[in-house]
Formats: sequence, structure tokens, C-alpha cells
Amino acid sequence: MLNGITNAAVIGAGTIGQSWVAAFLASGLNVTASDPDPAADKRLRDGVATVWPDLVALGLTTDRIEQGLARLRFDTDPAVAVNGAHVVQECAPEDLSVKQALLAAIEPALAPDALILSSTSGIRPSDMQAEMSHPERLAVGHPCNPPHLVPLVEVVGGAATSDDTITRAMAFYEGIGKQPIRLNKEMPGHVVNRLQSALWREAVNLANEGVASVADIDRAVTQALGVRWCFMGPNMVFHLAGGADGMEGFIDRLGPAFETWWDDLGTPRLDAATARTLIDGMAEAAEGRSPAELAKARDAALMRVLALNRQM
Amino acid sequence: MLNGITNAAVIGAGTIGQSWVAAFLASGLNVTASDPDPAADKRLRDGVATVWPDLVALGLTTDRIEQGLARLRFDTDPAVAVNGAHVVQECAPEDLSVKQALLAAIEPALAPDALILSSTSGIRPSDMQAEMSHPERLAVGHPCNPPHLVPLVEVVGGAATSDDTITRAMAFYEGIGKQPIRLNKEMPGHVVNRLQSALWREAVNLANEGVASVADIDRAVTQALGVRWCFMGPNMVFHLAGGADGMEGFIDRLGPAFETWWDDLGTPRLDAATARTLIDGMAEAAEGRSPAELAKARDAALMRVLALNRQM
Repeated sequence: MLNGITNAAVIGAGTIGQSWVAAFLASGLNVTASDPDPAADKRLRDGVATVWPDLVALGLTTDRIEQGLARLRFDTDPAVAVNGAHVVQECAPEDLSVKQALLAAIEPALAPDALILSSTSGIRPSDMQAEMSHPERLAVGHPCNPPHLVPLVEVVGGAATSDDTITRAMAFYEGIGKQPIRLNKEMPGHVVNRLQSALWREAVNLANEGVASVADIDRAVTQALGVRWCFMGPNMVFHLAGGADGMEGFIDRLGPAFETWWDDLGTPRLDAATARTLIDGMAEAAEGRSPAELAKARDAALMRVLALNRQM
Repeated sequence: MLNGITNAAVIGAGTIGQSWVAAFLASGLNVTASDPDPAADKRLRDGVATVWPDLVALGLTTDRIEQGLARLRFDTDPAVAVNGAHVVQECAPEDLSVKQALLAAIEPALAPDALILSSTSGIRPSDMQAEMSHPERLAVGHPCNPPHLVPLVEVVGGAATSDDTITRAMAFYEGIGKQPIRLNKEMPGHVVNRLQSALWREAVNLANEGVASVADIDRAVTQALGVRWCFMGPNMVFHLAGGADGMEGFIDRLGPAFETWWDDLGTPRLDAATARTLIDGMAEAAEGRSPAELAKARDAALMRVLALNRQM
């Protein structure tokens, strides 16, 4: 399934790196993690142990945590950590020069056909690979938070990335149970963040205009749009809203209304007054619950939805 | 719970009207439906019988279908149908003059404190009520499709709507198990359609730009955004992404990135080339399944998500 990939390296053991390590271990890979902070080793092991029951519950592994952690090594030197790795998941800080220096340090220690996949959300792969000796083997593999649970991974190459790298990156993520999508162009925000920023911009506009409370705007998503969008995307929703004529019927009949709404969408900025509206609105919506309490409820709910999502 | 509301009238027995009738009957109301087509009576009864098992499955009624249908009457004359109604759900065609003529016909037969709630998605309540003798009792109660299943209802009044009407409309929908939200302003597309049009505009832009396939753009929603948005709205998602600082921390740290993406969002039109891209993309995504087959799968999935959603 993983086409001979047995060894992975994860460079950077922050939140995202830790989550990738858990996902890779659950898939049976040998993982070497690296972080400049020697204390990251223990934090990482504790973090993996914390999320392991969720990976078991979702059917992503049947191993006990001890079996998973037995496949994990750690080294503060990334050039040592990547030794023998077939795939590297790079999770260094979002700074081009930091990433370029890291790539320069690890490239000599890697086989020429090793995949280098970057978790970056904002740096263009063309820029990252500009000074690499084998730029064709680098692609972005951008996860959604948290990477060990949310299935989507956005795969996009830079100008020098080879088709073979993209093909193998897609196969790798599919092999570990992810749902990768292939992007044909480098775009700020890739696809997921662009889509969510588009919806949120109008949510912010409606809050600014006082059309509804922040909590009620959220409710419009959870009680109407989200109940479909967790198993069927917006294009398919409209394809079916078009009846027997599908998308063509939808565009004929409802396209004009959508264009009218498009023309009326707002273009707010996150200025001080807008920030105040959102912060106050969330304080009201939270009804006294702390972010930590809410996050705990979110994680429990997310697990239930993901379990259902995997069956659909 | 329903503050003395026992009798409802549903005017217009098309898809939306039929669905409202099912929801009202499930809530124990006596319902009189009206449609100019006498054959609508049988279609309506058949339609209600078809969806009744779903209402039972979601716990919205414990009645047998015979008990539900025993509470249903039908009259082709709307002025007769509204006799004795405490609430009227108007589902006539989306045409201002048709709706105004209907309101003129039914108003004399209604008690002054009867609620008149319009399912309109596109007509302003201020325009609908312009010629009414008791304009203060009209509000929009816009459902999401299908109204008997999807919880959200958007409640918005026109210039002449009384606060009391809005308060009672909200209580009525809550009483029948819906999740109404109160809009303080008439806006084209209300909230739900504006939010979904905003996201879809960028989805169309990304398809047009060839960034990803239509199917993969849908996957970005179902495998990343939708798994949260079915139980937690976009504002709350970001409030929690801000960690202990909540929305304030989120805006501080990620606001600039979002503004960058906002500035880069596309503004496509639904011209012939764009329509072709979407139609061809859906043909590929459908993988040979007809809209009817896909709709059947959607309905089954929606039921499972709604059952989960009601527990969260």
C-alpha cells in the first residue's frame, strides 16, 4: 500500500509535527522526529499517547500505544533524523529562510528519490525549492488541523516539482488513510483556507451590519449548511438542487439569484470595530464556557462526526 | 409550548408547502392546506406519508401516519383554508403580485393576531406587507430545504412588522422543534444563502482557474471544513483556533493572513464557459450516478447527520 515507504522523518515537533508523528506511527511507519529543543522528545511521546485512543477509535490503528512508540526515534539534528527516510514531512516554522536552511541541511543525507513534503500553509513551494539540489522531490502536503484526525491533505508542487513526486505524494497520503487532493497551481491559502475565508468574510460582514448575532450566524452554518457539507460538497449539493437536469438546471434556474447575492456580498476588514464585534459576539456565544472547555466539547463532537464521515 | 397555537394553514402545496405540512402535522398541529390544483390534496397526503418515517426516526413525532393525516384538511380556496388558523405558512409562487393578491384574499378571514409567515427566499417582507390591512402580523419564516428535516428557519420582519410578531414567530418555530434565527435587517439571500453563495463563488473561481477538479473542491469541504461546520460555526472554530486568547488571539495572529486571502478571492460570473466547467466537473464527480441515485444517497446520509446533530 505504501509502495515501499517504511521510514518517515518529521522535522519540527510542534503541534502539527506531533500530530503527523501520531498519524504516521498509527500507519505502521518507523518515524524519526527532530526538533531543536531536546525536551520535545518527551512532549512528543506524551502527545502521541494522548491522541492514540482516538486513532484506535477511528480504526486507524489496532496497535497498542507501546507498539506505536516503539517505532519512534528522536534526534535534535535534522540531518541525522532524515537518515534512511523515504519520506520527510517538514513542519518547521513558517519562515522561508528557516525552511531553506533546513532543506540545505537535510538534502545531502537523503536518497535522491526520497519525498520531501512541506506542511506549509503560506509559503510557495517554488520559493522553497529555489536553492535545492533536487528540487523535483519537494511538494507541499498541507494538512488540516489536527492532521491525525482530519482527512484532507492539499498536495501542490512548485515550478520544479516532478509529476512523479506529486503522484507518489498522493499515493503516500492515500496509503496512510488520508484524502489528499491535487492542486494544479500555487495559490495563497490553497483551497481550504480560501473557501473558509470566503464564507467567513460574509459572516463578518453580516455581523458588522448587525443582520444577526455572531452566535446566530454560526447557527446558520451548523443547522443548515454544515449538515450537508460534512458529506457532500457545495457543487454536488447544487447539482442535486437542479433536479433531473443537475448542475445545468441549477445554473439556469438559480444562477441569476446567486449572481445577485454575489454582487451584494460585503468586503469588511478586520479593523478594531470589527474585531470588537466578533470578540463580544463570541463572549456572548460562549455563554461562560472557556476556550478550553469548548475545545474539549469540540474534540468529542469531531470524533463522532469523523466516525460517521468514514462510513459515508 | 406552542402558546395556544393549535391550527395552522399552509398555502401552496408544492415541495416546500408539502414539507411544512409534514413538519406541522408531526408537531401535533391541525393543518389545513390549500392549493389551486385539486389534485394537490392526494399528492400532499402521499408526500407526507413518504417522509413520515423520517420524522419518526428523528424523534419529531411518535404518532402513526394515520394519526397525522387525520389532522389534515384541504381546500382549494385559501380564504377558506385559513379559517380558524392561528398561524399561516405562505408557500405561494415567488412573485410579489401573486403573494400580495393572496394576502388580500386571506386577511379578512384571519383573526387580527394570527401570524402570517412567508417562506419566501427572495421577496422583501416590506414589499409583501405594503398593502395589508394588518401588516404588523407578517414576517418571513424562510426554511432550508427540506423544511421538515433541516432545523434552521430565518425569521425577518419588514418595516411594518411588530416586535410581537417576531417574538411569537420565533417561539412558534422553537415550539415545533426548529432552530430559528432572528435577522434584524432585510437582506437579499438572508444569511444562509449569502454564506453559501460566498463560499460557492470561490469554489467556482478555483474551478475556473483550474486549481483543482470540481470533485476535489467538494472534497475540500466534506473532508475538512464540513466535519466541523456540522456542529460548530466558523466564528466558534476560529475562537478556538485562537487558543486561550480566543477570537482576539485568532484575529491578532491569523487576521492578516485572512485579509490577504480575502484580497485574492475571485469574482467569477456564471457565463457559458464557467457553466461548462461546472457541468463537466459534476459529470466526472457523479461517476455515472444519476441525480436521482445521488439524491437518494444524500437523503440517507442527511438523516444520519441530523440524528447526530440533534444529540450535539
